[in-house]
Amino acid sequence: MQDIQTAVIRLVDRQNTALIGSVDEAGFPGIKAMLAPRLREGLKTFYFTTNTSSKRVGHYLRDSRACIYFYDRRTFRGVMLTGYMEVLTDSASKELIWREGDTMYYSGGVTDPDYCVLRFTAERGRYYKDFESVDFEI
Amino acid sequence: MQDIQTAVIRLVDRQNTALIGSVDEAGFPGIKAMLAPRLREGLKTFYFTTNTSSKRVGHYLRDSRACIYFYDRRTFRGVMLTGYMEVLTDSASKELIWREGDTMYYSGGVTDPDYCVLRFTAERGRYYKDFESVDFEI
Repeated sequence: MQDIQTAVIRLVDRQNTALIGSVDEAGFPGIKAMLAPRLREGLKTFYFTTNTSSKRVGHYLRDSRACIYFYDRRTFRGVMLTGYMEVLTDSASKELIWREGDTMYYSGGVTDPDYCVLRFTAERGRYYKDFESVDFEI
Repeated sequence: MQDIQTAVIRLVDRQNTALIGSVDEAGFPGIKAMLAPRLREGLKTFYFTTNTSSKRVGHYLRDSRACIYFYDRRTFRGVMLTGYMEVLTDSASKELIWREGDTMYYSGGVTDPDYCVLRFTAERGRYYKDFESVDFEI
């Protein structure tokens, strides 16, 4: 189990993008590519920056069931973490992961109302490697 | 509209992987990386090879609501197509997209019961480019 977690963390930290999954109001799954998480606590909690006005935020406010997915195109290894996504708009959370260059995306700076934080909390994981999948607890 | 479709087809055909989205029995979204579709009819129909025994197949048999997603990590452009996924196990479909080297994945050849076809039919699309998303019909 420890070996899987170590391999998964290595895989996650090597990717510059993450995919996030949601379910829309009609019950259809949605996928979106995101910049890599700004902050990660083990494999339990992941923080992403996003636009408050985005469709994805609307979906998570309605249904917080979520997944995040990282994969390496070269080795064809992937990991899906399943859990819940929260939309955070409080100042402390927004300041926690803000970086100077973010004004490129959010012109109003850290207090821009269109800037918010997605916090994903994982409940379980599934690691794919060498044509096989292994489930693991978190 | 024609311009978007052309740009999207170019994006799709350049990727060697696709992501597919599903919803599991507990209502959680799922994501999986797949080899690029074997066959594509416009932006309407996409065929993928997969393992009959895979979790994803079980999810689609229960709930065919699906999405597929292609993105370019370098330009950060992406497209999500939303629609339905069918699981096909008939000989004609299996032969349609079979390639010789596939025995690497399915040792029993084209009649291997663990080899099946996923056929995705798109209803609508959403194209992301330059920090903006545009919806389009299919």
